[in-house]
Amino acid sequence: MTTRNGLGALFEPRGIAVIGASASPGKLGAAMARSLETFAGPVMLVNSRRPDPAAGMHSSVAAAMEATGATVDLAVLCVPASATAGALAEAAAAGAGAALVCAGGFAEAGGRGLTHQADVATVVADTGIRLLGPNTSGFLAPGRGLVASFVPGAASIPAGNVSLVAGSGGIQHALAFLLAGAGLGLHLGVGIGNGLDVTAADVLDYLAGPGPVTGPVALHVEGVTDGRRLVEAVERLTEQVPVVALVVGRNDVGHLARSHTGALTPVWRTARAALRAAGAVLVDDEREMVDAIVALEQGRLDPIADPGVGLVTGQAGPAVLFTDRLKTAGVSVPPVGSATAAQLDELLPAITHQGNPVDTGRPGETFTDVLTAVGADPAIDLLAVYALLEPGALDLTAAVTAAVNRLGPAGPPVVVATGGPADDVVAARRALADAGIAAYDGVAGAVTGVRSLIDDARGRDARASAGPTVRLVVPVGFTIPVGEDEGKRLLTWLGIDTPTRQACDDHADAHSALARLGAPVVVKMLEPVVLHKAAVGGVHLGVRTDTDLESALDALDAAGARRYLVEETASAGIDLIVGARRDPVFGPIVLVGLGGDLAEDLETVAVRPAPLSEATAVGMLDELLHSPAESANGSGRNRLNRSALAAAVTALGALLTAVPELAEIEINPLRATADGRLVALDVVVGGVSEVGTVDVTHSPALATVVDGQGGL
Amino acid sequence: MTTRNGLGALFEPRGIAVIGASASPGKLGAAMARSLETFAGPVMLVNSRRPDPAAGMHSSVAAAMEATGATVDLAVLCVPASATAGALAEAAAAGAGAALVCAGGFAEAGGRGLTHQADVATVVADTGIRLLGPNTSGFLAPGRGLVASFVPGAASIPAGNVSLVAGSGGIQHALAFLLAGAGLGLHLGVGIGNGLDVTAADVLDYLAGPGPVTGPVALHVEGVTDGRRLVEAVERLTEQVPVVALVVGRNDVGHLARSHTGALTPVWRTARAALRAAGAVLVDDEREMVDAIVALEQGRLDPIADPGVGLVTGQAGPAVLFTDRLKTAGVSVPPVGSATAAQLDELLPAITHQGNPVDTGRPGETFTDVLTAVGADPAIDLLAVYALLEPGALDLTAAVTAAVNRLGPAGPPVVVATGGPADDVVAARRALADAGIAAYDGVAGAVTGVRSLIDDARGRDARASAGPTVRLVVPVGFTIPVGEDEGKRLLTWLGIDTPTRQACDDHADAHSALARLGAPVVVKMLEPVVLHKAAVGGVHLGVRTDTDLESALDALDAAGARRYLVEETASAGIDLIVGARRDPVFGPIVLVGLGGDLAEDLETVAVRPAPLSEATAVGMLDELLHSPAESANGSGRNRLNRSALAAAVTALGALLTAVPELAEIEINPLRATADGRLVALDVVVGGVSEVGTVDVTHSPALATVVDGQGGL
Repeated sequence: MTTRNGLGALFEPRGIAVIGASASPGKLGAAMARSLETFAGPVMLVNSRRPDPAAGMHSSVAAAMEATGATVDLAVLCVPASATAGALAEAAAAGAGAALVCAGGFAEAGGRGLTHQADVATVVADTGIRLLGPNTSGFLAPGRGLVASFVPGAASIPAGNVSLVAGSGGIQHALAFLLAGAGLGLHLGVGIGNGLDVTAADVLDYLAGPGPVTGPVALHVEGVTDGRRLVEAVERLTEQVPVVALVVGRNDVGHLARSHTGALTPVWRTARAALRAAGAVLVDDEREMVDAIVALEQGRLDPIADPGVGLVTGQAGPAVLFTDRLKTAGVSVPPVGSATAAQLDELLPAITHQGNPVDTGRPGETFTDVLTAVGADPAIDLLAVYALLEPGALDLTAAVTAAVNRLGPAGPPVVVATGGPADDVVAARRALADAGIAAYDGVAGAVTGVRSLIDDARGRDARASAGPTVRLVVPVGFTIPVGEDEGKRLLTWLGIDTPTRQACDDHADAHSALARLGAPVVVKMLEPVVLHKAAVGGVHLGVRTDTDLESALDALDAAGARRYLVEETASAGIDLIVGARRDPVFGPIVLVGLGGDLAEDLETVAVRPAPLSEATAVGMLDELLHSPAESANGSGRNRLNRSALAAAVTALGALLTAVPELAEIEINPLRATADGRLVALDVVVGGVSEVGTVDVTHSPALATVVDGQGGL
Repeated sequence: MTTRNGLGALFEPRGIAVIGASASPGKLGAAMARSLETFAGPVMLVNSRRPDPAAGMHSSVAAAMEATGATVDLAVLCVPASATAGALAEAAAAGAGAALVCAGGFAEAGGRGLTHQADVATVVADTGIRLLGPNTSGFLAPGRGLVASFVPGAASIPAGNVSLVAGSGGIQHALAFLLAGAGLGLHLGVGIGNGLDVTAADVLDYLAGPGPVTGPVALHVEGVTDGRRLVEAVERLTEQVPVVALVVGRNDVGHLARSHTGALTPVWRTARAALRAAGAVLVDDEREMVDAIVALEQGRLDPIADPGVGLVTGQAGPAVLFTDRLKTAGVSVPPVGSATAAQLDELLPAITHQGNPVDTGRPGETFTDVLTAVGADPAIDLLAVYALLEPGALDLTAAVTAAVNRLGPAGPPVVVATGGPADDVVAARRALADAGIAAYDGVAGAVTGVRSLIDDARGRDARASAGPTVRLVVPVGFTIPVGEDEGKRLLTWLGIDTPTRQACDDHADAHSALARLGAPVVVKMLEPVVLHKAAVGGVHLGVRTDTDLESALDALDAAGARRYLVEETASAGIDLIVGARRDPVFGPIVLVGLGGDLAEDLETVAVRPAPLSEATAVGMLDELLHSPAESANGSGRNRLNRSALAAAVTALGALLTAVPELAEIEINPLRATADGRLVALDVVVGGVSEVGTVDVTHSPALATVVDGQGGL
């Protein structure tokens, strides 16, 4: 059975064998057998050491199949790590297409666990059996009564539309319980564990079909090895259903960071950037995950660049909080049109706030009319509501569902936040959910719900409207690592401005450069292997006279310099870092951050997968600088040339994509001067191997947007 | 009755009169009378238009008192806005010490509402009666059965230890319901509404005593008029109980921002900074508020600069998420000591993670021992726990309470996060709360709880260890507005470095200044009234030759210059903005932000009330720069001189505090050069009135830390 990426045998088995089934209730094998009792198909118990065919305990998978006539697609292995490879081989030989291994004691334990994991991997490779685990608490497919989990209470998780793919089995169960508490059931819940064979990408591909795709997917990412595959799976899946991603590890900075680029882009940042670019909605914790899924389970918006939210409230204080939090989340709350305003003017007393938000004051009989008017406004793509439950004064569920019915199928999705006695709130949320309306117990959750619907719509719009990815052809060879002068010629060839300069072999050359360039100049050591020239005293700024120059050159000589670079002094401005590097997990990425001495302290950096389009690069700048430069006041601020910066970012990303021998290229600083130039003051180029001449001559297989007309 | 700030009559009345009581159930007067039925003392109904003494409906407060012999301390006014002043005067005359006015139609409605509010204010001023409202849903003191609210269901709010002071009545009720849902009851819940008389500061002062102070205080701030009073009330109250503040209005930028300083510090930022400095814990939404209160209701930590959290988990995935989120929240998770490590080594299998966090794997019999060992470690000030509820495998409540008992009264506070079937989680949370342990339904809430306990401890520690506030005496007169040259002399007097420069009356002066200072120089227009010189072309950088200079001077002349400032060119570095201004609500504040062209885009700024200590100023830098400069790597980065920067900030704050005529002083940029200087490149000084010579000669009433030895 190899349907759906080979995972049909795992998630849709015709029959299941529990290997290592046990009569002792405390053992894993007994707990698994109990959990699987609700499965609609045959479940066979296997114990090679204590078989008891009369009691349904078989000596092997083959014996069980023979005795029952049933097919075993899935083998659930409940034997120690050391016995797993053997049991797996036997199950595969008997025809099982998939296996679940919950036990620990494999690679995560080190020592002999590494051997056990390698032995299991060999069986997987030899037999083609698909294996989930080891070191996971299993998976849940409540729609088929399939509870392949040893966690007590997992059987209480209801069937539903949500799928859950978690790196950790513990998180998988915690999220499943929280979703159940919010009234949502699972289509499929999977804990990946060690991910020896089946990874999150595999499960996402399985969910993407062929076959019915049910509802939103919650993705928990703790570590990623196959980043590109994961991103591609998310790209495919978000075409069909929303994907919400919780990436952990913000504070686990990677151990290896050879240059600033590495230090600035831990895997957490890269993973989030890549998943967002693939269309996923990002959340920060498990509660936000549930809030996001609650909204997305009711549907999604059309792909829109900036959906407008209409907010109708029954209390002014919550209205202020709701609006404030929506705006902090980057959500637009546009004014309603004049026709809507006229309607509201008729429906509401003059003292109410009739803009957007519309605060009705204590809701009265016209509440449904107000909701309908705002929801029907052309500027409104999503209707958000807040009202306290006030028995006797307002039937919130009735008022909102009436408005939804009046607005009809073309009406906007509705998100409701309410408050009141806890039991009443639970009942109202349930009634609203039954009517297809996402509902929350307050502003906090509702804001996450609204924001998630909008991020999902924006993500799809951004993917649809990104424009062509910038790629290039590199027609010449160059030597890696590249020295600063050669690196700057490479930048020139990429269309990036650099200071006027002269590479000098001796002091006399340098003096003539000073004369030619005019004081003050910058004098640097010119050695390809020194990545941080400033740290070793290899940079002298503000050199004005021949005497200054001579002492600077002497200092460089003392630091080991053999050649010098004499450059014009760039005028003052904003220093940025722009770079591209090859992430070990996600492949080529680009980054833009604030440069200068405070770069690391500020942690202000935007990351995207490369290659990328110029529109995507402009989006990075919007992320980095909280407000677009175009919105600045007229005081002459913000002279940053965004299109030139976006072109530089895309060019670096395209270069790294085109040259597999290149590990990184970083411009630090890239100065945006007060007079509008964008000048690369320093550049570091690193290869995937330490040294060597690399002859790079690529064929123009892809669109050439930078014409290769100059050599280096 | 004027106990406790005069609010005893409001919150602890001996008797209550409902004025405008009604027989129509839908009317406010009827709803209020119903709500007040649970009050233990006498509640008299008054309706001057339809009195019916036989049915207990009196014609006036005086008549009611005479008929019943009871005292009316509190008058609850349920009459229209236009009739409120008259009814209030009558109640005051009859001896009522306080009144509640829920109705709207006052100042918030504009028009005639302004008149009504002024009339009521006159009665308040003339009689001394304390008035809560208008435009509020009232207040709750469930311990006395006192439900002075028209919101249905408010009577279901249980009595407890938490107090709630909300700008908005709607938020007050929403929070009260959420707290009740989390098992917490109210000591007092108050919605301030229009705040005509009783403000949040008044209620906080009332809560601070004299008299028993019960538990943590939740403060919702929507707008503040008496900022200094509010801050002082929070300072007093946090000495006794924790205060958690939710400030809304992040996105409501003030209308008036004459200089960058104004634009960079909206009231939201200032209010948060001031409340935090006063010891309050800050939260972002109502759910975080509840999570914070749940933790703080169980107790608080001792004042400690950096409390250590020990985390014990039963599942590895949640452990990673919990640790990651704690670190993102700035919480320290220090290693346990060697004695504890040895204990853990005996208690747990080798494959578990025994550092901090301690992940036990699926919790077994030793879970209590593990909790006790970690909780007893000297590095641990707070114990956090995560474990899924696994009936049959672990009795989490029993395990945690056993550890708490073993740790005894000197043990650390414990915060528990759990997961599982929703009903089981509710039951476990309740059982843990009954045992005095804060418990949450997942990592998200628990992180807020832990963070709040730590912020509360840090806030008190910071206040205790801030050191002396820097004040100064200004011994000379100067003219406001101050021109750039005079402003820089003022900075020199404050101990802040400035570029070598020469103020020039004519072109010849300027040429001699160029010769004296050496090329390149900066040439600026020297006019006191031009705040943004750069915007009008009043600044020329990099002027090297006499020819350059002449064209620069011509351009300045054309822009209207009459005098010039010729300055040395500062070397490159990091540009900051440092300033002090007089906030209309909070009084003197200081700010530090990133300078240069991107300042507004980045919104990166730290704010504190002035005057302040140098330790507090250093804390601002820590806030601005995510990691301390001292933690930087050895690559020569972060040459920022923090102590000099802190001294500059405190000096500006002290100056503004000492000179009431000064509205603002802003250094932009203050450049931290690569060679370690901290140089003020430009300064703007503004007075509270537009122009005029101000003779400032203050007596040395306060500690003089800057010796006034030079005139300007």
